[in-house]
Amino acid sequence: MALIVQKYGGTSVRDAERVMNVARRVTEAYKAGNNVIVVVSAQGDTTDDLIEKAAEINPRASKREMDMLLATGEQISISLLAMAIERLGCPVISLTGWQAGFRTDSKYSNARIKTIDTERINMEIDRRRIVVVAGFQGINRYDDITTLGRGGSDTSAVAIAAALHADVCEIYTDVDGVYTADPRICKNAYKLDDISYEEMLELASLGANVLHNRSVEMAKKYSVKLSVRSSLNTNEGTYVKEVSKVEKMLVRGVTRDNDCARISLCGVENTPGKAFQVFDMIAKSGISVDLIIQSIGNGKTKDISFTVAESQLDIALKLLEEHNSVINAEKITSEKDVSKVSIVGAGMVNNSGVAAGMFEALYDAHINIKMIATSEIKISVLVDQKDAERAVSAIHDKFLSK
Amino acid sequence: MALIVQKYGGTSVRDAERVMNVARRVTEAYKAGNNVIVVVSAQGDTTDDLIEKAAEINPRASKREMDMLLATGEQISISLLAMAIERLGCPVISLTGWQAGFRTDSKYSNARIKTIDTERINMEIDRRRIVVVAGFQGINRYDDITTLGRGGSDTSAVAIAAALHADVCEIYTDVDGVYTADPRICKNAYKLDDISYEEMLELASLGANVLHNRSVEMAKKYSVKLSVRSSLNTNEGTYVKEVSKVEKMLVRGVTRDNDCARISLCGVENTPGKAFQVFDMIAKSGISVDLIIQSIGNGKTKDISFTVAESQLDIALKLLEEHNSVINAEKITSEKDVSKVSIVGAGMVNNSGVAAGMFEALYDAHINIKMIATSEIKISVLVDQKDAERAVSAIHDKFLSK
Repeated sequence: MALIVQKYGGTSVRDAERVMNVARRVTEAYKAGNNVIVVVSAQGDTTDDLIEKAAEINPRASKREMDMLLATGEQISISLLAMAIERLGCPVISLTGWQAGFRTDSKYSNARIKTIDTERINMEIDRRRIVVVAGFQGINRYDDITTLGRGGSDTSAVAIAAALHADVCEIYTDVDGVYTADPRICKNAYKLDDISYEEMLELASLGANVLHNRSVEMAKKYSVKLSVRSSLNTNEGTYVKEVSKVEKMLVRGVTRDNDCARISLCGVENTPGKAFQVFDMIAKSGISVDLIIQSIGNGKTKDISFTVAESQLDIALKLLEEHNSVINAEKITSEKDVSKVSIVGAGMVNNSGVAAGMFEALYDAHINIKMIATSEIKISVLVDQKDAERAVSAIHDKFLSK
Repeated sequence: MALIVQKYGGTSVRDAERVMNVARRVTEAYKAGNNVIVVVSAQGDTTDDLIEKAAEINPRASKREMDMLLATGEQISISLLAMAIERLGCPVISLTGWQAGFRTDSKYSNARIKTIDTERINMEIDRRRIVVVAGFQGINRYDDITTLGRGGSDTSAVAIAAALHADVCEIYTDVDGVYTADPRICKNAYKLDDISYEEMLELASLGANVLHNRSVEMAKKYSVKLSVRSSLNTNEGTYVKEVSKVEKMLVRGVTRDNDCARISLCGVENTPGKAFQVFDMIAKSGISVDLIIQSIGNGKTKDISFTVAESQLDIALKLLEEHNSVINAEKITSEKDVSKVSIVGAGMVNNSGVAAGMFEALYDAHINIKMIATSEIKISVLVDQKDAERAVSAIHDKFLSK
């Protein structure tokens, strides 16, 4: 008898039909003799609807009250899913975040799970009940409701799988698994059978949009075996686990992220501490910086370029211009219609041929590279947004054609 | 500094505008130097919408899961109202039923409050925060969410007022207070300044629809002073309190209830235990019986008549016909389009003139009386539904014209 944690996102439970569909999957796993814990998100657009309701009343509502409001979304999902499972004749109980023992810190709207008191869940499992748990939420030391922020339900599922030493944590989504590239833009993309945590982390942060990084990091930390699969078919998904077997294939996937913009500070005085000044200021204003490049410069001055999310470009520019008396750049330039294209694969750093191959593929496709950045297991380039899809296909076919 | 409990129903918070309106009233009371606890119901049609969602998935969902679902309605209201109060610049915190310490028995969908652990509320009040509490809900000994059933939010408000020895519990509704009759059907009806618990109990159960009986009973038990008033204007409402002053006016109000139907068992054998047989059977099937009359009969047989809610007439008739081999009535008759018209007033029983006056008023208006029943403080008659409004006006003008 295995212990399985299943997680279903908002689109998987968006209406009565989908809820019944999830209930059937859950009860199949249960009837096969497994103990099953199900973590669900709020239905479809519920969270957005609630945010809109709040904005009508107070656009600057406190985060504590927003969490109180938003937590109702998952409470609705768990009760409806439990009712659907009841209808299929299986014993079931729904639990909110606090009932399931999720204790978090007090950072409303973006809380971290501190501990899970598993007593209640274990008791229900011992009674052979299916346990339906509200994702995305917990309570803090004051017994106030908190929410976990983006990717919260994935994180809830992985945390409970870790706490109960579950055999597997299945993340159900609207795709079949993890692909070598986005199948919508690269016709030769194919599904990976398994992938390491590290590779998944790079893919997730690069816009593959399947699993949130936070949950992958937690899975890695507690060695939780993840399975990413579709809630709409029974295809085998992709396993994310400790170490994927040594393989010939070095490159595991190609991703594209359109949500970026480039900022360049040109002609900055070449003295120590300049980069610190710039990025400290930006970080303190809550803006996330991605790729960073500093040119060697001409001795007296240097250029600093970096990318931010497109939505944060204007704020970042305003900030830099206001403080240019300190930074003292000769010119501040920016560019919006750019994309980050990346390849990910373990051991890449030891094989300089990979980078060369990537650049060659882009050269052959006549695509200009604006910035380059590399890490242990990925290489990213910034290109014009109009070239991005062609870039993904060209690189994919170079490294990943079957 | 007074401690005030205010309760607002679903229509009072049905949209953003109404929520802001309630927030203004609450903050006025707070700024006048009072400590304020606000109990709110779910917004407008929220509860009905949730019930519909559940019915789509499982029309026979367990009550435990229904309570889990329905409790979200008030959680949404409290957070929105807290946000509205934040916007007006007053310190505020919302609390769900369990956070506010409402402990109930385990009768899901119709739970009774057992105790209120007031520690959290008191702490918040000590910090001079406005406390917004979710009505209608609590948790049981298993830490599972329960709801209190009909009139639940009124009951929550009175319970918290009792537990904290509040100076007054203000029930805000869409009428100005308690009237001598329904102003929509009796143009001479006027508002009462105060009324005793007992009178209010009779008026509530007779269809005055202002306060649920359960909350009035609790207010009486713990001597909580109630004030019934409108959320849409600042008129003085009606106080419901320990003992209303001795007054000349014996009759306090006239009510009408259209939701009733008459059943008669004619020619029942005149032996002991017949009434018990009939009403025991009906009670066990969950049907509530109201007026009961048994004719003296002709010695060998008697007639038993009673009223039930119109919606339960068919079930009751079916039940009686199925068991007529035991009851052995010669004939079972019924009638749907009837109304119960009642007058209420303390001390009525000691004044036979009241009953006579009521019958005279009906006689003068050419209205036929089908059944009569009396209690300590009320006299009810059953009339044709088409005559009911005229009956109310005739009786009102006889006893209550100013």
